[in-house]
Amino acid sequence: MTSKNRVLSGMRPTGRLHLGHLFGALDNWRRLQEAYECFFFVADWHALTTEYADTKGIRDNIREMVLDMLAAGIDPSKATLFLQSRLHEHAELYLLLSMITPVPWLERNPTYKEQQQELTTKDLSTHGFLGYPVLMASDILIYKANHVPVGIDQVPHLELAREIARRFNTLYGEVLVEPQPLLTEFAKVPGTDGRKMSKSYGNAIYLSDSPEQVTAKIKPMVTDPARVRRRDPGNPDVCPVFDLHKIFTPKVERDTAIDPGCRTAGIGCLDCKGMLLEHMLPALRPIYEKRQELATRSEVVQEVLEDGWARAKKVAGETLSEVKAAMRI
Amino acid sequence: MTSKNRVLSGMRPTGRLHLGHLFGALDNWRRLQEAYECFFFVADWHALTTEYADTKGIRDNIREMVLDMLAAGIDPSKATLFLQSRLHEHAELYLLLSMITPVPWLERNPTYKEQQQELTTKDLSTHGFLGYPVLMASDILIYKANHVPVGIDQVPHLELAREIARRFNTLYGEVLVEPQPLLTEFAKVPGTDGRKMSKSYGNAIYLSDSPEQVTAKIKPMVTDPARVRRRDPGNPDVCPVFDLHKIFTPKVERDTAIDPGCRTAGIGCLDCKGMLLEHMLPALRPIYEKRQELATRSEVVQEVLEDGWARAKKVAGETLSEVKAAMRI
Repeated sequence: MTSKNRVLSGMRPTGRLHLGHLFGALDNWRRLQEAYECFFFVADWHALTTEYADTKGIRDNIREMVLDMLAAGIDPSKATLFLQSRLHEHAELYLLLSMITPVPWLERNPTYKEQQQELTTKDLSTHGFLGYPVLMASDILIYKANHVPVGIDQVPHLELAREIARRFNTLYGEVLVEPQPLLTEFAKVPGTDGRKMSKSYGNAIYLSDSPEQVTAKIKPMVTDPARVRRRDPGNPDVCPVFDLHKIFTPKVERDTAIDPGCRTAGIGCLDCKGMLLEHMLPALRPIYEKRQELATRSEVVQEVLEDGWARAKKVAGETLSEVKAAMRI
Repeated sequence: MTSKNRVLSGMRPTGRLHLGHLFGALDNWRRLQEAYECFFFVADWHALTTEYADTKGIRDNIREMVLDMLAAGIDPSKATLFLQSRLHEHAELYLLLSMITPVPWLERNPTYKEQQQELTTKDLSTHGFLGYPVLMASDILIYKANHVPVGIDQVPHLELAREIARRFNTLYGEVLVEPQPLLTEFAKVPGTDGRKMSKSYGNAIYLSDSPEQVTAKIKPMVTDPARVRRRDPGNPDVCPVFDLHKIFTPKVERDTAIDPGCRTAGIGCLDCKGMLLEHMLPALRPIYEKRQELATRSEVVQEVLEDGWARAKKVAGETLSEVKAAMRI
């Protein structure tokens, strides 16, 4: 194997992280840091694209999030973990790339119109919101990342970053690296009400939840709605608890006990949830305990981000110098 | 008088400056530096909004332009003269302000559609071109400039910067200063072909032109086109040479000799141009000579910009800190 390929990935500072984040990103990051040179960042400037009107939670959210990342196994001795807004190089490259990015490329971005339609309580017709794929491109390209882990639905966003890189290289010479998607299949993580797990739905199980809190959330969790009585057979295919089994419970146990037990009404939903907790609590307890321990060390987040800043700055500064030299400015 | 008010003004690095720049900006800057705390800058990032596809001339243009500015009397001991792209603070504020600037505010900017229609050979539908008023606002607001010298046609641009400042202050608290226009009447400066003086028309008289070159350009200059023969009476109101007289020749001489002499055919166009050169050459010679002298000192531009950078950075850095504190990022 040659020298490590570089991976970049970021996450908006939404506050405390839940199982959706753990299995949608962090677990993947933890694996990636073993095989790649990883740059992971808290995308606080991206948070402004939709949250500009209410920024008061951002600082606390950053702290909570970094604690969760560390607790989930992101290791600062392996990966570079940094805060986007500390790197003015991202802003400068954003400015330069915005000069060469056609507005129609941005308008055809499916997320642009979608989010405008969904988040109708917010005014999202801003220049910054229109330009967020340019900022994303800048985040990626400034580290010359070879790979960006994405789900299949995010491939168009990455394609835009690739197009911007190509346009830059055509205009000014080969400086930027076209990032390749690292296609990742993410487990479906249902919330306690059966909908997608989300802070705003109030259905989330957080990495900072104690085993008692997790248990209290799982107990009343929604199951197959057609299984009304204990003796009714259930259907694991439509049961959100079974989706969690798929994450936490070994396949052999699912296939021999949970799935047939449900279909034959051999086990009840409460039994099923107890079996889930037997796997879930031991899996989550180390994260919870590590987080409890980290939270007592008030300086740890600051130290990790400071160290990450220095490492990120070295790479970002070099790329920006090459970019400016190529553009002759 | 209380402490000096602050003025900001910038100019794109178009290369060697001509009389249009001298009387459209520099002469005004020279006066302003006596009464205000002035920040003058070379807007090289703004040049990218239209020149991104061909940047090879920008560096030389910056050097030529700064030499012309110094020769025209901009005094680095009085005014702060700096290069925009050295101040990453402008880029960072641009990013932050772009988050709160509605796209419709930018689309209704009259220059946006005008320039797109005029400069049809260039693709100006970029995110950066759309956002150039945001960058301009950032340039102004980061120095908390009280005044910006503008012609009447540029008042709408300044109004946009004022609107962005107001929106910021409404969202995050009173940090930014709404700049007031310093309405300035600029003399009409015709080129040698009678059209507006412009590098691209090839009709310009440069600050770096020697007295011999100026004379050689004035001699064949277009005059009142209706005055074909020496004995035909002329009309100073439509004569571009007379426009130059208005700049260089004392009013009493214009009123008693040039104007009536032209209207009565008492003087010929060549006489008239000779009378113009009698005032024009002594006025321009000191600028030319100073420029010749400056050009022999290879380090002077670098030194001036370095010193200006340090002074500008102090103010820009302070404002950016206040902005980030107000936005809680």
